[in-house]
Amino acid sequence: KLKAINFGDCHWTKGFWAEKTQKAIDVMIPYMGDVLCGDIGHALNNFKIAAGLKEGEHKGMYWHDGDFYKFIEAKIYAYGLTKNESILNELDEYIEIIGKAQEPDGYLQTQIQLRSDADRYENRKYHEMYNTGHLLISACAHYRITGKRNFLDIAIKHAELLYTIFYPDTRHFQRFGFNQTQIMGLVELYRTIGDDKFLKLAQKFIDRRGTYEIKHDATTVGYPIGDMVQERTPLREATDPVGHAVLALYYYAGAADVYAETGEKALVDALNRLWESVTQRKMYVTGAVGQTHYGASVNRDMIEEGFIDDYMMPNLTAYNETCANLCNAMFSFRMLGIHGEAKYADIIELVMHNSALSGIGVEGTDYFYANPLRMLHGTRDYDAHADVTETPNREGYLSCFCCPPNLVRTISNLSGWAYSMADNGVYVNLYGANQLSSKMLDGSDIKLTQDTEYPWKGLVKLTIDACKEKAFDIALRIPGWSTSAEIRINGEKVEQQVKPGSYAVLNRCWKAGDEIVVDIPMEATFVEGHTRIEEVRNQLAIKRGPVVYCVETPDLPAETNVLDVYLSAENELITEHKADFLGGVTVVKSDVLVRKDNDNTDSMYRNIRAPKWEKHPLQFVPYYAWSNRGTAEMTVFLPVVW
Amino acid sequence: KLKAINFGDCHWTKGFWAEKTQKAIDVMIPYMGDVLCGDIGHALNNFKIAAGLKEGEHKGMYWHDGDFYKFIEAKIYAYGLTKNESILNELDEYIEIIGKAQEPDGYLQTQIQLRSDADRYENRKYHEMYNTGHLLISACAHYRITGKRNFLDIAIKHAELLYTIFYPDTRHFQRFGFNQTQIMGLVELYRTIGDDKFLKLAQKFIDRRGTYEIKHDATTVGYPIGDMVQERTPLREATDPVGHAVLALYYYAGAADVYAETGEKALVDALNRLWESVTQRKMYVTGAVGQTHYGASVNRDMIEEGFIDDYMMPNLTAYNETCANLCNAMFSFRMLGIHGEAKYADIIELVMHNSALSGIGVEGTDYFYANPLRMLHGTRDYDAHADVTETPNREGYLSCFCCPPNLVRTISNLSGWAYSMADNGVYVNLYGANQLSSKMLDGSDIKLTQDTEYPWKGLVKLTIDACKEKAFDIALRIPGWSTSAEIRINGEKVEQQVKPGSYAVLNRCWKAGDEIVVDIPMEATFVEGHTRIEEVRNQLAIKRGPVVYCVETPDLPAETNVLDVYLSAENELITEHKADFLGGVTVVKSDVLVRKDNDNTDSMYRNIRAPKWEKHPLQFVPYYAWSNRGTAEMTVFLPVVW
Repeated sequence: KLKAINFGDCHWTKGFWAEKTQKAIDVMIPYMGDVLCGDIGHALNNFKIAAGLKEGEHKGMYWHDGDFYKFIEAKIYAYGLTKNESILNELDEYIEIIGKAQEPDGYLQTQIQLRSDADRYENRKYHEMYNTGHLLISACAHYRITGKRNFLDIAIKHAELLYTIFYPDTRHFQRFGFNQTQIMGLVELYRTIGDDKFLKLAQKFIDRRGTYEIKHDATTVGYPIGDMVQERTPLREATDPVGHAVLALYYYAGAADVYAETGEKALVDALNRLWESVTQRKMYVTGAVGQTHYGASVNRDMIEEGFIDDYMMPNLTAYNETCANLCNAMFSFRMLGIHGEAKYADIIELVMHNSALSGIGVEGTDYFYANPLRMLHGTRDYDAHADVTETPNREGYLSCFCCPPNLVRTISNLSGWAYSMADNGVYVNLYGANQLSSKMLDGSDIKLTQDTEYPWKGLVKLTIDACKEKAFDIALRIPGWSTSAEIRINGEKVEQQVKPGSYAVLNRCWKAGDEIVVDIPMEATFVEGHTRIEEVRNQLAIKRGPVVYCVETPDLPAETNVLDVYLSAENELITEHKADFLGGVTVVKSDVLVRKDNDNTDSMYRNIRAPKWEKHPLQFVPYYAWSNRGTAEMTVFLPVVW
Repeated sequence: KLKAINFGDCHWTKGFWAEKTQKAIDVMIPYMGDVLCGDIGHALNNFKIAAGLKEGEHKGMYWHDGDFYKFIEAKIYAYGLTKNESILNELDEYIEIIGKAQEPDGYLQTQIQLRSDADRYENRKYHEMYNTGHLLISACAHYRITGKRNFLDIAIKHAELLYTIFYPDTRHFQRFGFNQTQIMGLVELYRTIGDDKFLKLAQKFIDRRGTYEIKHDATTVGYPIGDMVQERTPLREATDPVGHAVLALYYYAGAADVYAETGEKALVDALNRLWESVTQRKMYVTGAVGQTHYGASVNRDMIEEGFIDDYMMPNLTAYNETCANLCNAMFSFRMLGIHGEAKYADIIELVMHNSALSGIGVEGTDYFYANPLRMLHGTRDYDAHADVTETPNREGYLSCFCCPPNLVRTISNLSGWAYSMADNGVYVNLYGANQLSSKMLDGSDIKLTQDTEYPWKGLVKLTIDACKEKAFDIALRIPGWSTSAEIRINGEKVEQQVKPGSYAVLNRCWKAGDEIVVDIPMEATFVEGHTRIEEVRNQLAIKRGPVVYCVETPDLPAETNVLDVYLSAENELITEHKADFLGGVTVVKSDVLVRKDNDNTDSMYRNIRAPKWEKHPLQFVPYYAWSNRGTAEMTVFLPVVW
């Protein structure tokens, strides 16, 4: 229903996303490039060795190639935004090496090519499909933005091999498609070059799931099976998201891409159910998903880094991998395209301002893999097992490096999600000062300027710089969290109803100089969870617009345990903008009650009569900006004294 | 440090446990016998078929023999309390059949003898050790109480075979010992007949754990491995209870039995750590344990029906198998014997009055397998998978029948836990009207009468009916939950400090007619959980003495969702005894606040300003007595308005 604009048609001009994007171009991407092209990251090294340009052995996870492709993708967007030739040259250098690493038949997986203990398509845990997916996506982006075919040709050659091997129905290959970014990649390749065999192959990877017996075989051993990788239930019958959150959401996003091309009802019905289930029964207030590092599904399959029961939302142990949160936004962006409903854009906004951005420090050079809603000193064992990915602070490098480039490519690409085009209209999905210069679907020019200090202020001014003469729609997203938004056109209040959680569609003949003002009051409010969420009962969080706040040690009275802090519901929430604090944030201030009668015994239960509290003024900071001032305790939800 | 009294030395005379025990003798055991000896239970049938007395095939779980032995054990206690000859005759009939079912070499497992698809000691999932353990325990109890050897001889013959096969160190048999009641059984047999090879074998089953690589082999396939069955970490190095809660606690209880005989420090150090961890980081306020039906351990082993992370205590999905709760009491009774500290008896009291007793209906003929702390309409799928053992109401038969006989044998045996003997003293562990007629460790007679309406009233009167002339200790447990207990001897207040959670040891020359009064104020109080328990933050439970209360649908205003009920901390908790209600209970009454602004949307998070509440008077009932008035919603913890 909605079509994405071309990347580069929209540019952030100032404010929140302009600053984050500039930080991506200036710091995040160069820093990440230094790491990945050096000996610590060793990602480019792997390709150089496979290309015969260097001696050495493969280092990094099986999915390290894929993560390097995501970094390349980020850099492609940086080029698209800056047209900086040196970026283009660096990309060409990478691509040349990658091309040399590719086998004559198109195969390209350094983790297999350089390791003697792993064969091609021998076991799905080697993540070949994941690497393939990111290769295709990155190469298509490169072609679209630069017009150059060097990367695309590598991708096509690789995809041809994939088609040869995986399109026929064979038992050995039926369970591949695990960590299924190749579905998105194949659809993107189909869209880019028009060869429908790649669309068919994408669909094949969906159709095969759930058609075989769930027990370990040679292609699966060494990694959990069943619900963990969404192979127990055929997608069209699925009602609940299961298993690894990143695997699940890339899968659903890929299926949404397939639906967008095929229009198959059973597929979109399933995707609708799954999206509702993800966002209404398994999502944190920050838009984060993947409640646990380890657990089990209702079908009693072992689950890692993924979904568990509905409404089971632990705070401290929430896994919420940065990638999973980003995937939630990616899946939602595709659903937005399919249905054109504002609730999908609301999730993108929620994720990007909170649980995505929390994955990188304000300086742009350190990363969280997990994004819990609470952190307490001395509660986690960071050496409990080999795959602990939770850390007390952000780290400058993660040996499992999937999240950082995923986040940086999404930040760099976000201007491409700000608007969509409808049949005879332009949809404003995300707010932030920007300029749009694009074409409507009928080919007519459309130029807009958006002026706003969003998300810190809710006043948005849209000026039409150029447009066709005939009437068309301008659709403004009225966020689901807003209460009394108001629209004015050229100073005159629009009478039509402005409903939160929907697009306000304004149809008229527009002309250059027309000015639309959307005024969305940005009040700090208390938020409560569904009564079924046990972990937040009788607790509240603070949210202002799309931004979720938290309490953090540096803002607490000395020696205060964050668990002793109670909100006082009768106290006002005051906001103050601090331009020089944490990269520029609006903080929320309120008097809180600090519990004084907790005796810190280890006793699990105790009798209680009248608690003692002390009132303290406190500052709340945006959740995404926590942990930039040293090791801290933190919590999003706090118990409330009504 | 403390020695258990002989079974039969103490008899409940009236009140709470006298009534429950009489119900066991009159209803629970006969009803259960009808079921297990008939075609539905099919437990005796299995033995008859194995004995060649009947045609047919094995029915029931692999552990069905063991559950029948537990029923027999309950019946042995019933005989011990009543000396009813017809019970003795019925027991002899069972034993004769069991003896005929036994193979000439001592092997006795109907699930293997009658099934062609399973071999002797082929795979530990066949639960042979579990059945063996309960055979030995039951047979020893039979011999001790009746003096007859018919059952004991079967057990000895069986144990000899076990020793022959399992004492040598062989690779095939090293991982047996799973669901390890045989450890307790072997120590009990050693204590009964004095042959120390059975003690050595018991220790062997402990020592072998954690000494081999954790991967599936022919003896394990088909059932989870690793932490699930406590085989990843050697017991002496264990710091946290892991895995299946029943398996873990039977294992620890057995190890405590071994320690009691060997005195090995490393073993008791481990048991101390494990007991603290179970009761102070993983236990519900009802004494229940086993937080989840399915999940994973920190080592990322799949866990069923067991322990998960510290302080992760979901209410609705709490598994809390009746057996696990009972095992918590059994483990604690053994630790009480080792250390003589009141905290262990506190746990026994807590479990028995709450999460054990909740496993059976007030009528004595229906059972809960799982004992969650919250029940909500329409939230569980009771057909989600083959092994759902959670039910909305108690059931008259459970196809997995481990819990009912376990509970009934423990109720029938509880008078045996009421007192222990110390070097020169008698310890009063549990309160309840009873008469003790026993011998102190020096062989002198001791006769006491305990008069009390405990747990409904906290006044306990102990009268000495007979005792030796020399000074000795009478030690009274001052419950950990008490606040201002007071002791009077012959009307005179005892000056020595009375410390909650300890035994008050009264040493003097006692004489017949001496009267000790322990006055433990029984006030209904609010209880809060440790700040680390997310699922009960800013919520309170109500407890009075050892009894935990809950709110249940029949006591709520019509159409009220139990999740909308808030406690009001400023309202008084009033108690009222109702002799004809739920088998005779003291209820707690208080005004509560019913939330009126919950819009019952499915939205996972929502803005909140001032909630609306309506005040209602409400009655709280003992948790153990819930679900005796039709399908109900229920919760133990409720959010509080301070």
